[in-house]
Amino acid sequence: MSSGGLSLARRAVEALRRTPRWQKRLVIVTVGVGTLTYACQDNQVLQINDGTGKKKVVIIGTGWAGASFLRNIDTSLYDVHVVSPRNYFTFTPLLPSVTCGTVEARSIVEPIRNIVRKKGGAFRFWEAECYKIDPNNKKIHCRSDNGTNIDGNGEFVVDYDYLIVTVGARPNTFNTPGVVENCHFLKEVEDAQKIRKSVMKCFERASLPNLTEEERKKNLHFVIIGGGPTGVEFAAELHDFVNEDLAKLYPDVKKYANISVIEAGDHILTMFDKRITHFAEDKFKRDGIHLKTNFKVVKVSDKAITMTNAATGEIAVPYGMAVWSTGIGTRPIIMDFMKQVGQENRRVLATDEWLRVHGCDDVYALGDCATITQRKVMEDVAAIFRVADKDNSGTLTVKKIKNVLGDIYERYPQVELYLKTNQMKDFHDLLKDSDGSAIKESKELDIEEFKKALDRVDSQVKMLPATAQVASQEGAYLANCFNRLNYCEENPEGPLRIRGTGRHRFKPFRYRHLGQFAPLGGEQTAAHLPGDWIHVGHSTQWLWYSVYASKQFSWRTRMLVVSDWGRRFIFGRDSSSL
Amino acid sequence: MSSGGLSLARRAVEALRRTPRWQKRLVIVTVGVGTLTYACQDNQVLQINDGTGKKKVVIIGTGWAGASFLRNIDTSLYDVHVVSPRNYFTFTPLLPSVTCGTVEARSIVEPIRNIVRKKGGAFRFWEAECYKIDPNNKKIHCRSDNGTNIDGNGEFVVDYDYLIVTVGARPNTFNTPGVVENCHFLKEVEDAQKIRKSVMKCFERASLPNLTEEERKKNLHFVIIGGGPTGVEFAAELHDFVNEDLAKLYPDVKKYANISVIEAGDHILTMFDKRITHFAEDKFKRDGIHLKTNFKVVKVSDKAITMTNAATGEIAVPYGMAVWSTGIGTRPIIMDFMKQVGQENRRVLATDEWLRVHGCDDVYALGDCATITQRKVMEDVAAIFRVADKDNSGTLTVKKIKNVLGDIYERYPQVELYLKTNQMKDFHDLLKDSDGSAIKESKELDIEEFKKALDRVDSQVKMLPATAQVASQEGAYLANCFNRLNYCEENPEGPLRIRGTGRHRFKPFRYRHLGQFAPLGGEQTAAHLPGDWIHVGHSTQWLWYSVYASKQFSWRTRMLVVSDWGRRFIFGRDSSSL
Repeated sequence: MSSGGLSLARRAVEALRRTPRWQKRLVIVTVGVGTLTYACQDNQVLQINDGTGKKKVVIIGTGWAGASFLRNIDTSLYDVHVVSPRNYFTFTPLLPSVTCGTVEARSIVEPIRNIVRKKGGAFRFWEAECYKIDPNNKKIHCRSDNGTNIDGNGEFVVDYDYLIVTVGARPNTFNTPGVVENCHFLKEVEDAQKIRKSVMKCFERASLPNLTEEERKKNLHFVIIGGGPTGVEFAAELHDFVNEDLAKLYPDVKKYANISVIEAGDHILTMFDKRITHFAEDKFKRDGIHLKTNFKVVKVSDKAITMTNAATGEIAVPYGMAVWSTGIGTRPIIMDFMKQVGQENRRVLATDEWLRVHGCDDVYALGDCATITQRKVMEDVAAIFRVADKDNSGTLTVKKIKNVLGDIYERYPQVELYLKTNQMKDFHDLLKDSDGSAIKESKELDIEEFKKALDRVDSQVKMLPATAQVASQEGAYLANCFNRLNYCEENPEGPLRIRGTGRHRFKPFRYRHLGQFAPLGGEQTAAHLPGDWIHVGHSTQWLWYSVYASKQFSWRTRMLVVSDWGRRFIFGRDSSSL
Repeated sequence: MSSGGLSLARRAVEALRRTPRWQKRLVIVTVGVGTLTYACQDNQVLQINDGTGKKKVVIIGTGWAGASFLRNIDTSLYDVHVVSPRNYFTFTPLLPSVTCGTVEARSIVEPIRNIVRKKGGAFRFWEAECYKIDPNNKKIHCRSDNGTNIDGNGEFVVDYDYLIVTVGARPNTFNTPGVVENCHFLKEVEDAQKIRKSVMKCFERASLPNLTEEERKKNLHFVIIGGGPTGVEFAAELHDFVNEDLAKLYPDVKKYANISVIEAGDHILTMFDKRITHFAEDKFKRDGIHLKTNFKVVKVSDKAITMTNAATGEIAVPYGMAVWSTGIGTRPIIMDFMKQVGQENRRVLATDEWLRVHGCDDVYALGDCATITQRKVMEDVAAIFRVADKDNSGTLTVKKIKNVLGDIYERYPQVELYLKTNQMKDFHDLLKDSDGSAIKESKELDIEEFKKALDRVDSQVKMLPATAQVASQEGAYLANCFNRLNYCEENPEGPLRIRGTGRHRFKPFRYRHLGQFAPLGGEQTAAHLPGDWIHVGHSTQWLWYSVYASKQFSWRTRMLVVSDWGRRFIFGRDSSSL
């Protein structure tokens, strides 16, 4: 399992050296070709560092964050290992397109081993699920989906020097009864394939002879629970599929087809600008997609979806297929890990601005499974004051503050954001005299005045959204930090350590929002681009096509996706129930 | 469910008229939109002819025979209904390519509803499985794979005037224990998809850490049971996939990969010319594919395949994945039907040369579920004598025989085949004097002499192979007969009725063998073309590409298949375990 050039003896010594004392009751030593393994006392099998002297980086997950990290990490510096239950990366923004065959499932996935190969075979991939992180012993416990050992349990343990957790999230059912059993989700490419098959089955079922009209209607009632971007895009795709393709193929039953979007809030697409929300709601109304806002789903049976609303009370709606897309929840492995690192009361794993898990050195978490907890200014205000007050005079002048302003802006981006939001030109504007006029450069501020000036900036602290864009940028950022670790140890380039001494090694992670699309069907897309630029319509659809084509993981998937689009334009979508 | 222009009243009258007396205890009459249905006493729901006055043709199955019939039937003459558990036609010769991703599954399927649409919506399709044919009442019993009625049983009954049975065959396990549970088959497109996923899983499993060499070998041992064209083509495809693509992606474990073909007979590809068999066996040996001929598999467990051989006795071989491809067996619906029509002792359904099921008027069977039982000359020799002996003289002259020779050749193609096989120029050569010399035109033959002349011709009667080519030609032939039924009733164009009077309406079905390919991997294909033309090599591979591209069902699938080939040449095959 490792570079064959190393002598087995050297490896064995290295392995023994690295093994904790309590595990030294060795049971079996099995030396495979290029592999050194041993079973330790608890009958689990331990994977040992291959002894190149490089630090071992283990990545769990191959989603946006994991794949982005992998693409950018310099494998000549680290011994990189990847564990994921799927041996491919999925271009998730196109999942709604896969549900209706606008693009094919395989066109949006890239095998991880292609990346391994492009990197000259410089890292290892194992198709297995990590089910437990053990930060105390710096190990992860993994399980293959199939019994593979002689013992047949398919379990193994991997140790690490650095662990990169990118396991993502799982669908959040809010413990609504019947959801897991009866609803489709839309997180994985297999989900999209199942939805596609299910849509076709519904049409075929509705076309059978001897059904009542009521039964046909039931079979062709497609319900989407959750008015977020995924649910809305799926509803739009499905509407196009039904009207552009299936209506011609199922002329007898097309009149029974019906799409509903159930949303617990007042509006759909609330994370977008209001103009987009209104446009989307109007378009859906025109298209005949039923929007049921302010409805909360309380139960899903195999026949009906039960929902409540203040006005109507509880109502049950028969349905043919339901897709649950109400947001994301925490995976069990993360919940267990949070307990171990003292974060049991949180919803997602908290990391610092350098993506390191709080309370756990050498473990980094990025993507949907984690969130950056931005350090608050008010928690550090005394320390900031102390840092700025270089001569320990107990007061600050504007000039003194200006000397550390760059570091403050970098360490606490909410300060800059606060100025921008309130149309202030610079930090100076925060400091006002009691009469509201600007203060002089020489004016001395004590700590209470300084606190007062800053007491509202923390309101600008916002959690990053759980999007592909964030995860991808985090992955690239972290890989870059790892690549420059040695250099930055000696030449730290981050902001001043406010509560410590010296500088941080790296600049903290900063998210660059590149805009967001909401495809609404009928070759129309809403876009919210940087600079608060909103556009809706056909031209945006073409922008969407070009951005999504350019963002593909490889030339292979790019060609496949573009040819899928072309095929759809020429021949329509495929209606085989496959 | 039918052409809306007809008055309901007329339909109701028509329906009542057509209903057998014993079923007239009507329970409920439900009039849907354009649909007339009623539940009859046994609580099953009966589908009624839509009253257009056209005869109702019901087709079971959408394989080669069914799809070919559908494409060719004139829907203006018949009320055509199709029942099949799959709403698409599969281009089965490319299934082995799908197992390794050389072409994608969706590229080789054509939705039946596309054909419906091309025919102007002129026939109906129901996605359901027919589980019983009731020839006495001219009905078929169907079941949808999902409960769809209010009662939830998903069953319905369809009546017919003509029934076209094209349900195909099922894999034949010869009741070998463990085959169904542990082996893959390769009959449906879903089978091919499962095999593809399974191959990738085997490689991922073999790559896991901490396995013994033995375990890696086991996981990467791919076993094909059956050395027929499908098994051999799959072995060749898999060998290419492993060596061209996977070896680069799984460099650590490629040396463990191993492909075995187990064949009970002496050789593989026995249905081909010996030159092809030898070439294939040599090529497989060079490629490192293990041929285990004269081995009979007696048991398959989840870990090992047990087989026997006279020399070695019983041996068990561990394996990672097994594909069972030993030939075809009879589907339960056909076994039940054969019992009803007095064919219980047969292996497949027997039809006459016009594809009509023996013992059952108005039911036609074609494709792999049926076989044509060619009428033997010796069974009819007295009748043939009588027909030829127009003046009832009790003897025949060569001249008299010549008058009916065309009909004899047409009705008993084995006569012509016998002449050809024995390098005889014409019928005359069959009739020899006792000294072996040719007889004179005026020589009178009595019935015994006539019998003696013909007594070996029936040795040439051969069953048609269960191939796509046969099924497809049968479908087109039968559709053509149906289309010309009215014309041919009045102007029969078949041979003389030897045992009856007048002529047969149609010429009997004649199979035209267009040749057969056996792709052997490494861009080499063996071809056995008409005229006993054998060719093996790279040029044949290009012939294979062009023939298979041209034979695609539609321009859509043609484009998809060709672009899949192109993609494979450029990017290789996809290794995602999807």
